[in-house]
Amino acid sequence: MLHAAVVVEFIKMLSNLDAFFDKAVMHAEAKKYDPETLLLARLAPDQFALTRQVQIACDTAKLGVARLTGKVPPSHPDTEKTIAELRVRIGQTIEFLRDFAEADFAGAEERVITQPRWEGKTLTGHQFAHHHVIPNFYFHVAMAYAILRHNGVDVGKKDYLGALPFKAPEA
Amino acid sequence: MLHAAVVVEFIKMLSNLDAFFDKAVMHAEAKKYDPETLLLARLAPDQFALTRQVQIACDTAKLGVARLTGKVPPSHPDTEKTIAELRVRIGQTIEFLRDFAEADFAGAEERVITQPRWEGKTLTGHQFAHHHVIPNFYFHVAMAYAILRHNGVDVGKKDYLGALPFKAPEA
Repeated sequence: MLHAAVVVEFIKMLSNLDAFFDKAVMHAEAKKYDPETLLLARLAPDQFALTRQVQIACDTAKLGVARLTGKVPPSHPDTEKTIAELRVRIGQTIEFLRDFAEADFAGAEERVITQPRWEGKTLTGHQFAHHHVIPNFYFHVAMAYAILRHNGVDVGKKDYLGALPFKAPEA
Repeated sequence: MLHAAVVVEFIKMLSNLDAFFDKAVMHAEAKKYDPETLLLARLAPDQFALTRQVQIACDTAKLGVARLTGKVPPSHPDTEKTIAELRVRIGQTIEFLRDFAEADFAGAEERVITQPRWEGKTLTGHQFAHHHVIPNFYFHVAMAYAILRHNGVDVGKKDYLGALPFKAPEA
């Protein structure tokens, strides 16, 4: 179940996040501005700009899954300066997530999770996933969406959610 | 597990959403404006305003849990015009969610879910929860946050996430 929530679903949402940038580039072309200017956009002066929102969405997925499973995540030094570089970062995060199988999450719910900044305090894997990783991940994808939306990019709920895996009605 | 993801966690996030309005009222008092003006705020002219974001967050939780369990949800006609009324709506949604136990979700993952606007197409309960209810719910809570943040209300990530259920380090 954690595999579905933090691997399968995050891969889909990261693909949706990646596709926001197709809409961003289309908007920039139509309005004749440099799409890279969007990377510094934010909704408030003390909010992280778009680049950082995307980096944190990627890190929340990558580090969350790594901590839940005990695997070592790839390092990303947050040096992305262009849309193309950010999309590579998203793609590398998706590739990392794709390597996980359900079996990698055996015992993950009970695993004791900590981080240096928690100063010795701990969460169970279950708590960490549901109270930290999942809400944080959706938050940063939604903030990237909100920043683009506020700047006129034609993203909508369908872009955020992606396609649903519907089963057709019986004939 | 679905109970943890769509009942326990949604109750917490709805409580956090409710508390955003304490910060909104504080901001309005400090800046001497009517806090109700925030209810019509939005990030783009074709985006739902704050009131609707809150209503949809509540409905996504309420209808999602109802469909997953086969229970009948309470009706809310979307008539809220004030912050106080919206907070009642949030509170009633939390009360509805509190009535669910883990046992109510027996078979929920395999349940066949449909809605009139899906025109006969279906999802399993598992797909419905992970591809629709959960990402949608977080989206609308995050949009309410983003709208308030953009208007200068002092909400931050801690207000969105709420307190984490840490275990203290061993002495």
